[in-house]
Amino acid sequence: MHKKLFIPGPVDVRPEILEAMSAPMIGHRTKDASALGERICKNLQKVFYTDNPILLSTTSGTGLMEGSIRSLTTKRAIVFSIGAFGNRWAKLAKSNNVPVDKVEAEWGQPTLPEIVDEYLSTGKYDVFTITHNETSTGVMNPVEEIAEIRKKYPDVLWLMDAVSSMAGVRIEVDKLGVDVCITSTQKALGLPPGLSVCSITQKAIDQGRKVEFRGIYLDVIALYDYMQKKAYQYPSTPSLSHMFALDKQLDYILNEEGLENRYARHLEMAKITRAWANEHFEQFAAKGYESNTLTTINNTKGISVADLNKRIGELGYMISNGYGDLKEKTFRIAHMADRTVDVLKELLDVLDKEIAKM
Amino acid sequence: MHKKLFIPGPVDVRPEILEAMSAPMIGHRTKDASALGERICKNLQKVFYTDNPILLSTTSGTGLMEGSIRSLTTKRAIVFSIGAFGNRWAKLAKSNNVPVDKVEAEWGQPTLPEIVDEYLSTGKYDVFTITHNETSTGVMNPVEEIAEIRKKYPDVLWLMDAVSSMAGVRIEVDKLGVDVCITSTQKALGLPPGLSVCSITQKAIDQGRKVEFRGIYLDVIALYDYMQKKAYQYPSTPSLSHMFALDKQLDYILNEEGLENRYARHLEMAKITRAWANEHFEQFAAKGYESNTLTTINNTKGISVADLNKRIGELGYMISNGYGDLKEKTFRIAHMADRTVDVLKELLDVLDKEIAKM
Repeated sequence: MHKKLFIPGPVDVRPEILEAMSAPMIGHRTKDASALGERICKNLQKVFYTDNPILLSTTSGTGLMEGSIRSLTTKRAIVFSIGAFGNRWAKLAKSNNVPVDKVEAEWGQPTLPEIVDEYLSTGKYDVFTITHNETSTGVMNPVEEIAEIRKKYPDVLWLMDAVSSMAGVRIEVDKLGVDVCITSTQKALGLPPGLSVCSITQKAIDQGRKVEFRGIYLDVIALYDYMQKKAYQYPSTPSLSHMFALDKQLDYILNEEGLENRYARHLEMAKITRAWANEHFEQFAAKGYESNTLTTINNTKGISVADLNKRIGELGYMISNGYGDLKEKTFRIAHMADRTVDVLKELLDVLDKEIAKM
Repeated sequence: MHKKLFIPGPVDVRPEILEAMSAPMIGHRTKDASALGERICKNLQKVFYTDNPILLSTTSGTGLMEGSIRSLTTKRAIVFSIGAFGNRWAKLAKSNNVPVDKVEAEWGQPTLPEIVDEYLSTGKYDVFTITHNETSTGVMNPVEEIAEIRKKYPDVLWLMDAVSSMAGVRIEVDKLGVDVCITSTQKALGLPPGLSVCSITQKAIDQGRKVEFRGIYLDVIALYDYMQKKAYQYPSTPSLSHMFALDKQLDYILNEEGLENRYARHLEMAKITRAWANEHFEQFAAKGYESNTLTTINNTKGISVADLNKRIGELGYMISNGYGDLKEKTFRIAHMADRTVDVLKELLDVLDKEIAKM
């Protein structure tokens, strides 16, 4: 039995998109491949609200996170972490011998603009990273406020992980001034995992050229240069199946559902989930910083989350246990991609009934 | 109109496999995901003739080539190149500041065992790379002979690019003594691009642990450790769609077609193509070293390959021009994956007719 997924990726994918995944192969060095790449990039620019180029990488989001922090840091990076995926930035940097410092907020709390100000004012850094939406804690960062403070430090590159929020929440990349904004397909974009994408500014590209050893496969400069030279083609054979699916899904997002409706639906699902969480448990994320794409819930009743997930699994639903040390202490309900309000309500009803029995 | 692909990847994919690509998503941290990963790895062990673990990477083959040469070289690597994809090993090493030397054979020639002996006998190297099947030149290396010589140097790790041959030609990894053997899905395995796989020996893993900065996403040690700890799961979200398709295709290869029949079909297609090439043109690969999965043909008639490809394109077929500097001087006909002898003959008839008109 297929389980309806309320986990923060992979998400359920609409049948039309799954069908697009199964289109026959084409040559990746053809005009058709260039046209496909160009269409995807131009449509992603609308989703990202950017005029900057978009790069596609046949990796998960982690691949582009590693590629960007490694390829673009010439001096030292500062990672503002609010959870497990924030911490990942620092691990990626260290594993590549990239000098890095990390400021980790108490889990459940956001990155405060004054902390960003404090660290960037030292002048020690030429790169900083922000997690837009932290999948482990369900916190969404106040990026507009961070963008305001950041105006004081325009030369420090801003890398942002928007893996679990882009296309579910409005993120105006150019207006914010983000230099590299990363997402991947298996979250709010509503596709299977296997492809990640990022926007990149000229400033980032110029800085990256000064880094001597950037590797090749994950190097954002190598991706950019090839794409520029070879009309939206890529150095290695990309996942064409994901590109077919992404092409179709972007058309749906932009021209059928519409971005505004998509954001509104995500917000409505978030409000319903938060209300349910507040009624039965409590939210893990600090008030005012709750994510629109997933809700992390404190397990105040001390139920067995594993058991709950097993029970609802038999009924065809799946949620996520807490991440890492938060396992059993919290659990997570993702409400993203093409999930509908009705199916979310179905899940909450099932949860009510099963929790009552426990 | 869909063109029948005779290019060395992407290849045409059987409809049942494309359908498997479109299966609904599952959680990547579930027992179902572990069972899927385990089944794939155990079946790939049969295709690789190895008892060593198999790793899956959501990248193209280049990703695992970069990951392995970077993660496993502690001293210095020697690249035995016979063409463009051999040269790629050296570029990947250099871009990661891995000390590397390269010996490049004249294009069209193989790597001779005595050359391997000469370089490994210096004692300077702890890693060497061999291209099993060079896609730019259509040369297949004499790996059994190389394996014989290599017995003198058991401590030097052998990394092998079998991207364009594995599953089309018998490559007995353990018998040869290859430490890391890499392939990707869009060649003789007959799947869409987007996933690569490798086998890895304990000796390679032990050596890799001594390398301090290996990155994370492409690091074969990180993949291995996670897979061991978490029952065939992976550190980042893998391309589940490719895994569904690979699972189904491996069942077909092993239990429906059978490996022996698959190799025989590839050999038959190679013989037919070589005979055609010898009749009208000549082969680029040195005699005795011709690839079983693709044939590179000297354009002795001086026809316009681009024009020929355009003509046959209008009839629903596609071949490859020469690679890099060999463009127009050569052209390539791939005969791999699930291509049938009949459809290959169809192409050769079409080529005959169109060449006669030119």
